[in-house]
Amino acid sequence: MHSVFNLSRLTKILLLLFAVGFALSQGGELFAQHRVTEGTYDEYIDTITAEESFFTISNVWLIVCAAMVFMMHLGFATLESGLTRAKNTINIIFKNLFVISSGLLLYALVGFRTMYPGTEFNGIMSFGFWIDVNPADYLDIMSAKYANYTWWTDFIFQAMFAATAATIVSGAVAERVKLSSFMVFTIVIVGFAYPVAGSWEWGSGWLDRNGFHDFAGSSIVHAFGGYAALACILILGPRRGKYGTPGPSKPIVGHSMPLAAVGVFLLWFGWFGFNGGSVLSAHPEQIGLVVTNTALAGAAGCLACMVATQIILKKPDVSMALNGVLAGLVGITAGADSMMPASAIVVGAISGVLVVFAILFFEKIKIDDPVGATSVHGVCGTWGTLAVGFFGEAPVLWQLIGCLSYALFAFVFSFVVFYLIKLVMGVRVSAEEEDVGLDISEHGQEAYSID
Amino acid sequence: MHSVFNLSRLTKILLLLFAVGFALSQGGELFAQHRVTEGTYDEYIDTITAEESFFTISNVWLIVCAAMVFMMHLGFATLESGLTRAKNTINIIFKNLFVISSGLLLYALVGFRTMYPGTEFNGIMSFGFWIDVNPADYLDIMSAKYANYTWWTDFIFQAMFAATAATIVSGAVAERVKLSSFMVFTIVIVGFAYPVAGSWEWGSGWLDRNGFHDFAGSSIVHAFGGYAALACILILGPRRGKYGTPGPSKPIVGHSMPLAAVGVFLLWFGWFGFNGGSVLSAHPEQIGLVVTNTALAGAAGCLACMVATQIILKKPDVSMALNGVLAGLVGITAGADSMMPASAIVVGAISGVLVVFAILFFEKIKIDDPVGATSVHGVCGTWGTLAVGFFGEAPVLWQLIGCLSYALFAFVFSFVVFYLIKLVMGVRVSAEEEDVGLDISEHGQEAYSID
Amino acid sequence: MHSVFNLSRLTKILLLLFAVGFALSQGGELFAQHRVTEGTYDEYIDTITAEESFFTISNVWLIVCAAMVFMMHLGFATLESGLTRAKNTINIIFKNLFVISSGLLLYALVGFRTMYPGTEFNGIMSFGFWIDVNPADYLDIMSAKYANYTWWTDFIFQAMFAATAATIVSGAVAERVKLSSFMVFTIVIVGFAYPVAGSWEWGSGWLDRNGFHDFAGSSIVHAFGGYAALACILILGPRRGKYGTPGPSKPIVGHSMPLAAVGVFLLWFGWFGFNGGSVLSAHPEQIGLVVTNTALAGAAGCLACMVATQIILKKPDVSMALNGVLAGLVGITAGADSMMPASAIVVGAISGVLVVFAILFFEKIKIDDPVGATSVHGVCGTWGTLAVGFFGEAPVLWQLIGCLSYALFAFVFSFVVFYLIKLVMGVRVSAEEEDVGLDISEHGQEAYSID
Repeated sequence: MHSVFNLSRLTKILLLLFAVGFALSQGGELFAQHRVTEGTYDEYIDTITAEESFFTISNVWLIVCAAMVFMMHLGFATLESGLTRAKNTINIIFKNLFVISSGLLLYALVGFRTMYPGTEFNGIMSFGFWIDVNPADYLDIMSAKYANYTWWTDFIFQAMFAATAATIVSGAVAERVKLSSFMVFTIVIVGFAYPVAGSWEWGSGWLDRNGFHDFAGSSIVHAFGGYAALACILILGPRRGKYGTPGPSKPIVGHSMPLAAVGVFLLWFGWFGFNGGSVLSAHPEQIGLVVTNTALAGAAGCLACMVATQIILKKPDVSMALNGVLAGLVGITAGADSMMPASAIVVGAISGVLVVFAILFFEKIKIDDPVGATSVHGVCGTWGTLAVGFFGEAPVLWQLIGCLSYALFAFVFSFVVFYLIKLVMGVRVSAEEEDVGLDISEHGQEAYSID
Repeated sequence: MHSVFNLSRLTKILLLLFAVGFALSQGGELFAQHRVTEGTYDEYIDTITAEESFFTISNVWLIVCAAMVFMMHLGFATLESGLTRAKNTINIIFKNLFVISSGLLLYALVGFRTMYPGTEFNGIMSFGFWIDVNPADYLDIMSAKYANYTWWTDFIFQAMFAATAATIVSGAVAERVKLSSFMVFTIVIVGFAYPVAGSWEWGSGWLDRNGFHDFAGSSIVHAFGGYAALACILILGPRRGKYGTPGPSKPIVGHSMPLAAVGVFLLWFGWFGFNGGSVLSAHPEQIGLVVTNTALAGAAGCLACMVATQIILKKPDVSMALNGVLAGLVGITAGADSMMPASAIVVGAISGVLVVFAILFFEKIKIDDPVGATSVHGVCGTWGTLAVGFFGEAPVLWQLIGCLSYALFAFVFSFVVFYLIKLVMGVRVSAEEEDVGLDISEHGQEAYSID
Repeated sequence: MHSVFNLSRLTKILLLLFAVGFALSQGGELFAQHRVTEGTYDEYIDTITAEESFFTISNVWLIVCAAMVFMMHLGFATLESGLTRAKNTINIIFKNLFVISSGLLLYALVGFRTMYPGTEFNGIMSFGFWIDVNPADYLDIMSAKYANYTWWTDFIFQAMFAATAATIVSGAVAERVKLSSFMVFTIVIVGFAYPVAGSWEWGSGWLDRNGFHDFAGSSIVHAFGGYAALACILILGPRRGKYGTPGPSKPIVGHSMPLAAVGVFLLWFGWFGFNGGSVLSAHPEQIGLVVTNTALAGAAGCLACMVATQIILKKPDVSMALNGVLAGLVGITAGADSMMPASAIVVGAISGVLVVFAILFFEKIKIDDPVGATSVHGVCGTWGTLAVGFFGEAPVLWQLIGCLSYALFAFVFSFVVFYLIKLVMGVRVSAEEEDVGLDISEHGQEAYSID
């Protein structure tokens, strides 16, 4: 129960942050009642034009996609639980609940306005508070070229993305990280690092101005999470027993493949919304192409990974195949809007091979990543970003600059922050706690019981 | 196998009910072929106006939401299984299958017409048979202000809600209720009590006429289910061993936290449709706001519950955190359309704290509710309904009258019915059956097998 | 590890197939960059008409439905895992990953153009390569009567269907089939047999021209899979121990009912997209009716199956009830668009009873179908197709001809192909491998680990 003090201190900080955020934002309007008068509503219906129909359709599509992206958080929770040991299951579920919950609130408080700072943005660094509160804006927005949805819809779609970076880290640090330390790290990453870096491209920042293209976030979301994960596991070190401490080196296998498979299928499902919604409208050609590319790249990643695994490991390994799907999906995320299905298949297939080599490489140099997050999201995210330079229209040089910028920023920032957390409060549970499992040592509960 | 006789008798009653319903309804048209002539279809496309586009979009949105609400039934099934013991898992799945199946059919037979009785309704009590069968109606409906969808769509969206009340009870009575008795109770609740009470507000009844506002059913659906559950578990009594009979009092823990977590994430996902669809159109501002409020209230409920649990129980309890999410969602259900996100966060956070105290309270007074249904759906449903008076525009007095009416009706009606069932056929399995588990004693099967 | 050689040979064949397909298709355009110029986009928004709004809405609906159908593949994976033994779980997951991945790619390569051959089709036999690559087509398509979506959308919706036939077989042959042999069989079925047979009706072939009606595929998809499964299990033979070899005959029970229940609920959810999307537009009346019929038939199938099971087996059997839901859904698939809800309930209820007798019948004649695929998809698929003759408008004679044609073709084709595979590479694992389980013998991994 060592985490009690840190956790309650943490929550005080969290509450304080909210209070400050609220005070800094639009004060009186914050808690206003929401009123759509009958007059306004009828008027809307009576005067609706075809252009407004497109607005309404796009808005529905974006919200459906937001819900599908939400499902990815269940996908991550089950995948990570399935690929780790039964004794750390509750810990993983708890972390994932915290990540999505704090992620949504932090994005409302600071992330959204930081990531999309608007016209006065200098292009590099931004910071802003609280989602907009004026619902009347949605009518004016319709004249803007890309805004085919209300601010609320924009917020909730982007908010569902925001927690993903931290979720990716969650899997890599599993089975040995201190809960309270991970929670602090999550808050810093989701509340600060991700939206600032995201603004470089999606907030019309310096990368966007130079032609860098990362459609739905191979680098901005996935590689960001993957290299943040790498920094953290370098500081954390491998799980006990994995590389011979104590005793001989031994493989640590996941406790439930069905749970892991549920996770991958749900992630694939959610990815249709992740990429499909990133069209930011219901443009028929675009969403059809993007969803097709997403499906085919995932499929190609899976098959190519099965082939590569068969050749290298000489067996049909199911956890590799599962990672192959994700590799393909991560790979196509940057360019799903700007290449033909044949290219999407090639990009996905290369991802599916790449992930096998990456996992074996990290295994060889004894970097312990229980779910392969660095390989899947980091390596394949970088590859996918570069691929847009080869198969799409983006300049290769700026794709390189862009993916290096995200990789470096995520790695360095995470390394510094996680190292500081290590100094202040420690990042790893004790050897005894690790051996008994985090479910008992951190939560005093067991995930399974046969009674 | 004691339930054989009751079950087959039950099914005879069920079949009879259907026969009567069919006979009472539109006879010859019932089994008519459905024909959309090519002419009509082409005509529809050729003459479609922008207003009709809005109709079409809204209709798609409502159907997608209906499918998402359906997913909540899987959420309840997995949550309830996860939070109870392995030996009662099949029983819970079977109950949930029966609840959704009989719920859909009963709603087609009597619920829909009872709940939405139309203009001749006296405002208090209604009863009607069979969903409308004239598909041509949908064109005329478009002139009505709120009808942005066909009757079929209206029916299926509302039907997905109808079984929820009984599902909530299912969790509370788990591990000791007699299957056949629960099935009879479900039929009475879903077929009669829920649609009658629902008509008071959603069918333009007396509460609606007085300004009561319960947007998507904090009281009408959730508190209704929660207080019905309370009545049933008061009659049933606690599970054996829970409060010292036999032997010393002992905690009974759920058998699979991953299963419970899957349930909560699926419920959260489904809630976007539950609340989002309750806008009853694709109005862009409204659905964006409602989904945003739903997401943020769930997140706030989770975080606030984590904080409260840490302070009170001194540990990060995962089943509490899961209930915190649901508490926040139940809380925002009544007012998701009529307050700003900052208010939604406050309402959700208060729910998340409330649910901890409620669970501990019921535990203290030895009312055994295995999944916390009364706390989550009852207490937080009432809070959410009242909150609309504080944060929205509804008159506080009528919010109070409304939530008391639903709570009282659900409790008293359920108490009387469940007590009558107890007298006629008994409501609890024998001590031996309970000890061996309902899977073996009622179903002759085991949920898990390692072979 | 006997499968190594076959598998890698298999993958070489697969790669070769792709290379040939690519060469045969539109060469230079294959890997073209995809460009939607700003001009085109703005132009689209500015000039959008109400008719184009309907196109856009329908396109969104179809894509959402495609995602829901994708979810059915997770449903099949979990259902099949849950209903079989723990020692074969990884094998089932691996097979399902392969089926969906190869299914999507094969449908892009040959299936789509084979199944929808266009105007030059002779009505009986067609074969074509690669999905269309000209995205500009979508504007012209709008003048065609049924094409309310882009080619991409059409492709991805149909592609999600394509793998289903093989998935159905996957469950029936579980626990004893050789992995590599199943993979080869999948490729032949998904890449050749299904699209050729599908073109008879959905590609405007000879059955379509004669008035046969199979709305979403009771015969074309489900019975096809069901009778293909029957052919395979006749060749494979029953699992060891099931009918007394070795030792006395014993029931083999599934290892996880929660997993099976998750599967059925997900399948039900996905079916709303499977049937709802088969309207091929967002026509408000049609999609409302179809989704309503789908929900009610599933519910009726479940209840009727519960009743029949109670009468025959004298206990509330949960795996029967789960199959009852699927039976009702399979049954309504052919006629969900052409009958009233009362008829849908009757069709579903009859399916629910039929499936009990079918499962008991196959059990009696010692045909071992671990998940009841032949009964659920074969028998109820045929019944559903015939039912359109009784409750819908299709001519009974042609419904009979149609369902016999699909049943016979699927059975005979599968029998011949699977028999040839048996001769060339064998179809069944050794007795030792079967006893130890396919997870260990084929994959060298275990699905569950308590560590």
